[in-house]
Amino acid sequence: MRVERDCVGELEIEEDALFGINAARAVRNFPISNEPVNPLLIISLIEVKKAAAMSNHISGALDGTKAKAIIAACDTLLDEDYKQNAFIVPAFQGGAGTSVNMNVNEVIANLANRQSNSQKVHPNDDVNLAQSTNDTFPTAGKVALLKLLPKVQSKVLDLIETLDKKATEFNDVVKLGRTQLQDAVPTTFGNSFRAYASLFKRDYKRLERAKDNLSFVNIGGTAIGTGLNADDIYQKNIVGKLSSITRIPLKPADNLIDATQNCDVFVEFSGVLKTLAVNLSKFSNDLRLLSSGPQAGLAELRLPARQAGSSIMPGKINPVIPEVVNQVAFQVVGNDAAITMATEGGQLELNAFEPLIFRNLLQNESYLENTITTLIENCVAGIEVNQDVCKNEVENSVILATALTPVLGYQVTTKVVKRALKEHCSIRKIILSENLMEEADFDNLMGSSNLLHQAKNKNYSFAK
Amino acid sequence: MRVERDCVGELEIEEDALFGINAARAVRNFPISNEPVNPLLIISLIEVKKAAAMSNHISGALDGTKAKAIIAACDTLLDEDYKQNAFIVPAFQGGAGTSVNMNVNEVIANLANRQSNSQKVHPNDDVNLAQSTNDTFPTAGKVALLKLLPKVQSKVLDLIETLDKKATEFNDVVKLGRTQLQDAVPTTFGNSFRAYASLFKRDYKRLERAKDNLSFVNIGGTAIGTGLNADDIYQKNIVGKLSSITRIPLKPADNLIDATQNCDVFVEFSGVLKTLAVNLSKFSNDLRLLSSGPQAGLAELRLPARQAGSSIMPGKINPVIPEVVNQVAFQVVGNDAAITMATEGGQLELNAFEPLIFRNLLQNESYLENTITTLIENCVAGIEVNQDVCKNEVENSVILATALTPVLGYQVTTKVVKRALKEHCSIRKIILSENLMEEADFDNLMGSSNLLHQAKNKNYSFAK
Amino acid sequence: MRVERDCVGELEIEEDALFGINAARAVRNFPISNEPVNPLLIISLIEVKKAAAMSNHISGALDGTKAKAIIAACDTLLDEDYKQNAFIVPAFQGGAGTSVNMNVNEVIANLANRQSNSQKVHPNDDVNLAQSTNDTFPTAGKVALLKLLPKVQSKVLDLIETLDKKATEFNDVVKLGRTQLQDAVPTTFGNSFRAYASLFKRDYKRLERAKDNLSFVNIGGTAIGTGLNADDIYQKNIVGKLSSITRIPLKPADNLIDATQNCDVFVEFSGVLKTLAVNLSKFSNDLRLLSSGPQAGLAELRLPARQAGSSIMPGKINPVIPEVVNQVAFQVVGNDAAITMATEGGQLELNAFEPLIFRNLLQNESYLENTITTLIENCVAGIEVNQDVCKNEVENSVILATALTPVLGYQVTTKVVKRALKEHCSIRKIILSENLMEEADFDNLMGSSNLLHQAKNKNYSFAK
Amino acid sequence: MRVERDCVGELEIEEDALFGINAARAVRNFPISNEPVNPLLIISLIEVKKAAAMSNHISGALDGTKAKAIIAACDTLLDEDYKQNAFIVPAFQGGAGTSVNMNVNEVIANLANRQSNSQKVHPNDDVNLAQSTNDTFPTAGKVALLKLLPKVQSKVLDLIETLDKKATEFNDVVKLGRTQLQDAVPTTFGNSFRAYASLFKRDYKRLERAKDNLSFVNIGGTAIGTGLNADDIYQKNIVGKLSSITRIPLKPADNLIDATQNCDVFVEFSGVLKTLAVNLSKFSNDLRLLSSGPQAGLAELRLPARQAGSSIMPGKINPVIPEVVNQVAFQVVGNDAAITMATEGGQLELNAFEPLIFRNLLQNESYLENTITTLIENCVAGIEVNQDVCKNEVENSVILATALTPVLGYQVTTKVVKRALKEHCSIRKIILSENLMEEADFDNLMGSSNLLHQAKNKNYSFAK
Repeated sequence: MRVERDCVGELEIEEDALFGINAARAVRNFPISNEPVNPLLIISLIEVKKAAAMSNHISGALDGTKAKAIIAACDTLLDEDYKQNAFIVPAFQGGAGTSVNMNVNEVIANLANRQSNSQKVHPNDDVNLAQSTNDTFPTAGKVALLKLLPKVQSKVLDLIETLDKKATEFNDVVKLGRTQLQDAVPTTFGNSFRAYASLFKRDYKRLERAKDNLSFVNIGGTAIGTGLNADDIYQKNIVGKLSSITRIPLKPADNLIDATQNCDVFVEFSGVLKTLAVNLSKFSNDLRLLSSGPQAGLAELRLPARQAGSSIMPGKINPVIPEVVNQVAFQVVGNDAAITMATEGGQLELNAFEPLIFRNLLQNESYLENTITTLIENCVAGIEVNQDVCKNEVENSVILATALTPVLGYQVTTKVVKRALKEHCSIRKIILSENLMEEADFDNLMGSSNLLHQAKNKNYSFAK
Repeated sequence: MRVERDCVGELEIEEDALFGINAARAVRNFPISNEPVNPLLIISLIEVKKAAAMSNHISGALDGTKAKAIIAACDTLLDEDYKQNAFIVPAFQGGAGTSVNMNVNEVIANLANRQSNSQKVHPNDDVNLAQSTNDTFPTAGKVALLKLLPKVQSKVLDLIETLDKKATEFNDVVKLGRTQLQDAVPTTFGNSFRAYASLFKRDYKRLERAKDNLSFVNIGGTAIGTGLNADDIYQKNIVGKLSSITRIPLKPADNLIDATQNCDVFVEFSGVLKTLAVNLSKFSNDLRLLSSGPQAGLAELRLPARQAGSSIMPGKINPVIPEVVNQVAFQVVGNDAAITMATEGGQLELNAFEPLIFRNLLQNESYLENTITTLIENCVAGIEVNQDVCKNEVENSVILATALTPVLGYQVTTKVVKRALKEHCSIRKIILSENLMEEADFDNLMGSSNLLHQAKNKNYSFAK
Repeated sequence: MRVERDCVGELEIEEDALFGINAARAVRNFPISNEPVNPLLIISLIEVKKAAAMSNHISGALDGTKAKAIIAACDTLLDEDYKQNAFIVPAFQGGAGTSVNMNVNEVIANLANRQSNSQKVHPNDDVNLAQSTNDTFPTAGKVALLKLLPKVQSKVLDLIETLDKKATEFNDVVKLGRTQLQDAVPTTFGNSFRAYASLFKRDYKRLERAKDNLSFVNIGGTAIGTGLNADDIYQKNIVGKLSSITRIPLKPADNLIDATQNCDVFVEFSGVLKTLAVNLSKFSNDLRLLSSGPQAGLAELRLPARQAGSSIMPGKINPVIPEVVNQVAFQVVGNDAAITMATEGGQLELNAFEPLIFRNLLQNESYLENTITTLIENCVAGIEVNQDVCKNEVENSVILATALTPVLGYQVTTKVVKRALKEHCSIRKIILSENLMEEADFDNLMGSSNLLHQAKNKNYSFAK
Repeated sequence: MRVERDCVGELEIEEDALFGINAARAVRNFPISNEPVNPLLIISLIEVKKAAAMSNHISGALDGTKAKAIIAACDTLLDEDYKQNAFIVPAFQGGAGTSVNMNVNEVIANLANRQSNSQKVHPNDDVNLAQSTNDTFPTAGKVALLKLLPKVQSKVLDLIETLDKKATEFNDVVKLGRTQLQDAVPTTFGNSFRAYASLFKRDYKRLERAKDNLSFVNIGGTAIGTGLNADDIYQKNIVGKLSSITRIPLKPADNLIDATQNCDVFVEFSGVLKTLAVNLSKFSNDLRLLSSGPQAGLAELRLPARQAGSSIMPGKINPVIPEVVNQVAFQVVGNDAAITMATEGGQLELNAFEPLIFRNLLQNESYLENTITTLIENCVAGIEVNQDVCKNEVENSVILATALTPVLGYQVTTKVVKRALKEHCSIRKIILSENLMEEADFDNLMGSSNLLHQAKNKNYSFAK
């Protein structure tokens, strides 16, 4: 064991540990769960350190030997094959990210010294040079979010594509619409799936638009955003270097003090993810409803069977994929509530609760990415339609009389509908027996070209 | 009393009431509270009816006499001086807006017939011609939201302007920064207020961007969005007519079926309003904290005294304006939670819970508009700074030693800070007595030009 | 106009207004909405003032003339026929209730002086004697909540009774159960409605239990709970007097300082109301689902028709009552979110956000009371069952084969079920044609006495 | 690899895996995150299986050989030293718990067969005999919750004890109270810490009371609660056996159908945990506020230094323990939001979202247990008071003039306070120079025995 000191006192650290006293204290202070800090956040922090070392070298604040050692250590840690077990700070942590920033500083410094066989690199004076947790942590958080975001978008695109395919496949399957769960005028499953596709296109655009605010970083602001101890040359270089390293187009925040203390862009982004989650949940609810049965339900859709549905009821198949989507959606909403409170709780020059905010946002991104994957592959791609059920519903439906109102008026049609329902007879029979309309006119209004043509005419616009 | 009939049966209605049986039933069915439907939503629905009458006349579906009568009735109702007591449907209502749409149809039809001395105009066949609650209600909801939105934006702009003024006024007031409520490196109140202004500029932009999705309306889709019973010519005219009448640039939704059933744009918009609310709350928390005292608090700021603060403690003044802002913010967050659940609960071709969604969004817009008004007028505009307190804090602060770390290093500086705190002596004294640095170097690093120059240099960018 | 002064300055007040400068300032400071403070809260505050006058007279702190005048004024204001237009403070208000407490002090003092033709009674020195907003406001809030609570409970009891009646009415209606919206083993509508009744019995008990913590009041604690300026004799009398006046059994809080600053009992109570709301929403969702149709839905239940369901689709009837229940439930959940944040935001010796907490809790109680009323009267009491639909479902269902698993085993039964579904033939036919079981044994297991007896045997326990 | 079959098809399973096809399918279907089902839930399910085997043996449904093998397998799995790697189902899962119930059935059956060297035990026909996921899963969930609950309670008791100790330690430290962050009448830190203790006593009681509803289990109800396929003797034994095994006093639910489909007791329990979380957050906010500084804050309290607070500011110490408490509290609130939606989303005879509900509740219990542990050990137990700061505050405070109002009246005292503040002079000086009161009277009212006696007199009651 080696002994390290900080402003609190001494602590024994395992001899060969790459982490140091600050990380070790965090483990003792925050024994909330065994969930570690998201590895993507660690990686992004290492990238920040690398960019800082480069920029500090350019400004002259960091000599070549140290810069080289730090950059080499970062590269080692960023290597995909490198097994990282030195990042030990728990996900739930006090301190506004200081523990994880310190952990990264310590590991890089120790590794740099180990690799260069020296003791020159200091975690604070060199690795953290011209930085503060106040700027490195939110910057790394944004980088991590922006890395996961395109993965979510890609899945949303896959979902849209799958839905569009299904819309084409089901283009001519006429079915009854339902409003407030009551029979309504007819539509097609082509319309239904195109509408879902259209819905998720808005989600895609929202995600795209969310990148804008997320890409403004406060690196260079050091503590509280005034930039104390950060050289002008460093400040001019750091964002560009970080963009190069991460391959994410980042921009310096207009007002570093604002960007350091306010977490509104995370509430905004959480709202966008929540909207996607709510849409996925609504879609899943529809799938579960339309596939209810197999005998005593709506049974219009058949979802692919994915596993036995009951330990006691043989042959039962449940809509397990939409069900897991619902639950993830609820959790995304819950995580948003926590993010909202965490943001509201920020005080003065800093928000101390950023660790929770990044944990939840990264979790939400990752949950959504994975959830859409299973939703597409294990459910939507394999959905089938029960054409007979759909056809039968439409043929027997009295609500189609809605198409007659331009001729008969609302009140007369109401009577016809009520009588048809009561006497279990068809609209046609009542209309013709009461001589309310000519047969040809009736057939014209009730033909699918009238019932559905409006929507069909507009197919082109759905394709957008 | 007159007797009206619907598909449920008969009901007596007051002889001279402009509303009819559908509105009267709603009053009986939904006795939840005495809160009426938001008048702005009613007005927007009337504008939809007027636009529909015009478009139906163009398409030939509605004859000139009826169209004229309907339009005249709408104009009467839209006149600011007209006292509206015929819109009786409660805010909380089942039926996806049908009750309020029917109420408006009835009032317009009755007024049209009364004004034209005829009985020609029918609420469903004429006023509601080529329409469904499914398209008129969400369209009117969006129109109402878009009417209030610029008012919120205008207040946000006023707030930004006021904050910028304060930033100029307090430009040179040096004060101690605080992270996690602990003393941090110095800043100025100019920086602080510019940072708040910068924060609310993002809110302004978010509100602006929110208009985009809100402006796509589904009018023309009739029931479930297929456009059944709506003429092509009507569909081509209706959105333009409504834009003209409301003076809001509306666009037809690409996919009317999607636009009819999904409420994601409302969750999205609610997220934007929630973000503004959270920002106002954080700002208010800061104001309350910085003005705590008057003797045993931070006492850096003095908020204008607005009312006696205690019924028992004489002379006590409380930060009542920020406090009401906090509470409104919490309610906006709560309303967002309800909107989220309402949107998730939509099923198949319609969301039955739109009445709650519009109620809450309109309430949130209105609350925020009024809250920012009082925040500016009764608080921010009159804020003063206790310069002595700020100056004293900075002069005595050991945390300024942060500026020495580039020379002394993190560990040595830590020792200096700890000793200064323990011995209640100044950093300067320790540094010089221990010969850690030349006096000139010390003064140079600890001078405000070093401590603050970074932020000052960047003033130009804050002004954006 | 008369001129009044406070520590802020002067203000003109309408000559004959009973309110004074503090109330008038509140109107200027809090122009958030036109929603007034809940009248029940005002009444409870007046009752507190009456009890205080009595107790202060007993302790000797208030002379007989003043006490009499104050009590008489309170009685006037508490008279049901008295038209109250002097309580002008808005629901949304900063100041932790000071404005409304002051408003009540002012009105009582002015009315006492007017009625006794003197100018002796002072709003703070006499009406507010030995009190602070810190103790009167939360005490009055609890009194108001406890007044509404039995009304909610009474409606929950009515609902239970109605559900029990329906359970008896539908006792023998066999129907298919559904888990995860997929066909499951059979049950009866008697079971279903008894289960709903059982659910709401827990809600009743939760409401009853919630009274416990709500009944501990902090009156007597004055500012921050130390009881400064409150006489011992007053403190010993005040809670008893208030209990007598309000007819609610109140108890003095064990720790007045705790009771003054913490709002946990309101979060707890809000959780109880939220649970009721969630249950009502789940029940309403079930009603809407089971009554879906009339032709292309589950159509097992018929809800009473309450209003025309569509402005375009004639004869359409929607489940408007359950729909309004859902929306109220969502709002109760949203209000709980706001209450949670308001409680978390309390600081040190007081929670400044009690006005929002009481507003939302009283609203939730009132909403729930009224919502259950319409749910019972306009929906549940008139529900009918489509026996044919239920019977048909059960007779055709392959999932009944679950009853055969104790004999055939899970795997063999699975094959039988799959084959029956695929070949659209009955379980019976497959079992007998494959000689898997004797006919008599089959009939025995598939008879309703086996399928349902377990639940029927336990009817007694449901009746608890 | 071995091949297993289910109603969906075939799947290859690793030769020596104890899990089977159902667990393997879950892994493929639910790749949301790498979080496994909570081990405590698995353990509780195994205990349910053991109790079921015992009860099925008593009823005669399960022969002795199989029962013995199943029980032995359960005992092996329940052995603390047994390394469990066969429970592979992810925490996020569709299917209402079927996957994890099946996983447990499979592992027990395979282990039973392996240990008994036979192939007699079948996962569904034997291990799951007379059970359904519908009853085993919620029963196991409640058992798991009830196992963790006393651990949370124990920590709350520890916290109360620690706070009481601090109250004794700080009994005579007079300090200024603050309402709405503004100076209020004086109190003591003894009062403050006794009030916190009093607060958490309510939490303890709420947790105790929450056990009641959680202890009613639906085991014996099998699918949907009718008890199909469960023998009467089994039903009479199962709850008792499970109570013995788990050492938790469980009771059979009055109405098994209700208990199977409704999750209201989980919303209720979540509300209780949320209340505790909110209280912990409020307490932590107070600690952070009172320890703000060290120089430019309130600085009344000193929290134990636990780690270096900044990577850039040397010697900075932050309140990291309260900060992590805040964040956990926010997450508990967020998890409650998800539980609320999950419960509301239950449909008809089952709630498909129980996996999320149990995941979140168990997480909340565990988070709270661990968070309170660190709060006590790393923070509260070591808190110190800055007596000088407190004393100085009180001595200079003009708000103490409140004690003079019974003599001087509210208006005169207001003037005195305003003048004292303006002229920076003492209340005493103004009172005596203006001859407003005799010196002896003044000293009497302003003495700490008057200012604080009320609270002190009531010490006995705080000790309850």
